[in-house]
Amino acid sequence: RRRLGEWVESTPIQRFVIAVILINAVVLGLETSPRLMDAAGGVLIGIDTICLAIFVVEIGLKLAAFGWRFFRDPWNVFDFVVVGVALVPAGAGLEVLRTLRVLRVLRLISQLPQLRKVVAALLSAIPGILSTGALLGLIFYVAAVMATTFFRETMPEFFGNFGASLFSLFQIATLSSWETIVRSAMDEHSWSWAFFIPFIILAAFTALNLIIAVIVDAMNT
Amino acid sequence: RRRLGEWVESTPIQRFVIAVILINAVVLGLETSPRLMDAAGGVLIGIDTICLAIFVVEIGLKLAAFGWRFFRDPWNVFDFVVVGVALVPAGAGLEVLRTLRVLRVLRLISQLPQLRKVVAALLSAIPGILSTGALLGLIFYVAAVMATTFFRETMPEFFGNFGASLFSLFQIATLSSWETIVRSAMDEHSWSWAFFIPFIILAAFTALNLIIAVIVDAMNT
Amino acid sequence: RRRLGEWVESTPIQRFVIAVILINAVVLGLETSPRLMDAAGGVLIGIDTICLAIFVVEIGLKLAAFGWRFFRDPWNVFDFVVVGVALVPAGAGLEVLRTLRVLRVLRLISQLPQLRKVVAALLSAIPGILSTGALLGLIFYVAAVMATTFFRETMPEFFGNFGASLFSLFQIATLSSWETIVRSAMDEHSWSWAFFIPFIILAAFTALNLIIAVIVDAMNT
Amino acid sequence: RRRLGEWVESTPIQRFVIAVILINAVVLGLETSPRLMDAAGGVLIGIDTICLAIFVVEIGLKLAAFGWRFFRDPWNVFDFVVVGVALVPAGAGLEVLRTLRVLRVLRLISQLPQLRKVVAALLSAIPGILSTGALLGLIFYVAAVMATTFFRETMPEFFGNFGASLFSLFQIATLSSWETIVRSAMDEHSWSWAFFIPFIILAAFTALNLIIAVIVDAMNT
Ligand code: NA
Ligand code: NA
Repeated sequence: RRRLGEWVESTPIQRFVIAVILINAVVLGLETSPRLMDAAGGVLIGIDTICLAIFVVEIGLKLAAFGWRFFRDPWNVFDFVVVGVALVPAGAGLEVLRTLRVLRVLRLISQLPQLRKVVAALLSAIPGILSTGALLGLIFYVAAVMATTFFRETMPEFFGNFGASLFSLFQIATLSSWETIVRSAMDEHSWSWAFFIPFIILAAFTALNLIIAVIVDAMNT
Repeated sequence: RRRLGEWVESTPIQRFVIAVILINAVVLGLETSPRLMDAAGGVLIGIDTICLAIFVVEIGLKLAAFGWRFFRDPWNVFDFVVVGVALVPAGAGLEVLRTLRVLRVLRLISQLPQLRKVVAALLSAIPGILSTGALLGLIFYVAAVMATTFFRETMPEFFGNFGASLFSLFQIATLSSWETIVRSAMDEHSWSWAFFIPFIILAAFTALNLIIAVIVDAMNT
Repeated sequence: RRRLGEWVESTPIQRFVIAVILINAVVLGLETSPRLMDAAGGVLIGIDTICLAIFVVEIGLKLAAFGWRFFRDPWNVFDFVVVGVALVPAGAGLEVLRTLRVLRVLRLISQLPQLRKVVAALLSAIPGILSTGALLGLIFYVAAVMATTFFRETMPEFFGNFGASLFSLFQIATLSSWETIVRSAMDEHSWSWAFFIPFIILAAFTALNLIIAVIVDAMNT
Repeated sequence: RRRLGEWVESTPIQRFVIAVILINAVVLGLETSPRLMDAAGGVLIGIDTICLAIFVVEIGLKLAAFGWRFFRDPWNVFDFVVVGVALVPAGAGLEVLRTLRVLRVLRLISQLPQLRKVVAALLSAIPGILSTGALLGLIFYVAAVMATTFFRETMPEFFGNFGASLFSLFQIATLSSWETIVRSAMDEHSWSWAFFIPFIILAAFTALNLIIAVIVDAMNT
């Protein structure tokens, strides 16, 4: 059993799995082309299935070798879920699951230590920004309730309900053609700038502090 | 009296108040939906009123316990104002006050030490950026006077008066579809780019230094 | 003579000059409103002239007190030019000079030490970014020549000549609706993305290093 | 032979070459104007040819002086390629090569040590961002496959094939009018925001870490 574990985690096997992931990635990309699917759909789906089979065998062997300890490494759980998803039979309403097959490509992250390190760094930045992120969320929540109350009737396409307001405020905070919304709000209520411009400045200032928290954190590591 | 103060600031009571704020936040969100208000408006407004009553009692007890010392903590003043606003009877023209009820949700900040710390950090960054901010304001003021003089007649929708010019310059400085304004200014006055492009670069450079001031400040803390 | 110099640079006189600048700033703002100019144009222009007269006397006294040494301080030169501009008689074609009167408001910078410090900091950042800025300029120059050659005939409104190309590339580099230009270029020449997307990435990467140069510089001060 | 090498790399000769590059840059800029080409095309092309001839002689002398060692310096290889491109006879389909003549202007970088240093700094930042860049690429790859599968049929102009999806996702990640795409996707599939908004946040967060990697790297140098 230990031998099996050593073998399945040996460098040649790992390299082979990485190669299979890359091949699978290319095939999944090619499958987006209806022309290619018409011409060689069978071959593509065949390769896809072989790749999946290899993954199932690989993870099966790891499970056999390590037992429940396998699930202690969160990356193994990730691999398990991402491969497992493909085995669920695609029935009605499960079309989405079929689309999730492409997540298998993300196994590259779990297999390449360099990428795993980057993801670990990204994740390690999250605790430091939770409270600033919560404040940003609170600002958006309060602003969305206010915007819905103010503009629901006059601008239903942008602020017709809470969800629409959140979306529009996110658009405004990303500074993407925000003036189209604010100018048309000002046509109805000339004071609207006094709501939106402070919102932009407040959201930008909070987001800046969120970014600074990530930078300071990265500096101290 | 001291006992009352200890009791109202004890952990269970504080947790209860936080729970009430969260429930109130959800209810205020649900109240934005006309459909829900038709179906269960009475229940929502009822819960809302109960939440408000709890806040009034809570702040009343704190006032009773601490007397005028209560107002020494700016967060208490914040709580007092935000809850007090809801008690003003909503008459004609006071519709806005009713909308401000949602600010009660911001009590989460005063009740959660983590959020209070973030806001304190945001506020502490302000003194360090006051003079750069003043310079940025001066640049906008001078540019708005110039833009109004130059383009008032040919582009009244963007630069018809001082306020409109300030708004348009803010749009340009946020790089949000700035080219629609500048290209149409250039159709009238081909030299317009020589006004707007330096303005963009100057505003961006000053804003960059404002951001750097915040970063350097955060590093040294 | 020394006494005169001490008097004109004494705190009360400096505060008085700052007050006059602020009043002048407000008046210049009000003068942008045709309605106000119709109602009280005489008063506004009167105050404006008095402010200007005070500035002329102030600078005259400084010149009398310090002689040619006055011009050794670049801020004095700035004050001299900005006030002097207003004395040039407004003839035909000199309308622009009249508009430059508003630059007088920038005297606030030379009179307030805090703002002077900010401007000094901005200026001190320039030497450190000259070579990166030159590289950015070179990238824009080469890209503008190429874009004009490629797209002059098919997209004359965006790339009809060297100047138009520079403007469009600046718009693209600021990420302001860049896709409208690139998508319409791709309608004509499907390979256009291979020109514009590397340009965006290269310009962004160079600009990032320019920003970093400013940050590193600010850190080491 | 050593004397020849010393002479061709002496300061006066280098300054002369830099002057020729600048003249050539101006001429290449002027050549983009059809009006100038009609009026003085012969002169411009003449100067252009003389500049090219000087470069050919310069590089030829360096080759004669240093032999194969010439190619050890990557900047020499750069000069060689950029000048050599202009000597390829412009036949049918080689129009593009003619356009590449303007790359000769980039010889300024290889001739000016300050610019060479900036480019070296830019290049030295690349290894540190390779793995974060690879992760960003992976995110785009997976998102493009998913977007093509989801929206190929309903939004062919934005997600009709893998390449179109990559382009649209790049537009969305640069926050350039991203809402036009996402709002029209939501008209067809109301859940689309749940795909695009996490994509924006994920791409922005990864890009932020890429930028931080460059900053941290620059700080430690
Ligand atoms: Na934008
Ligand atoms: Na933008």
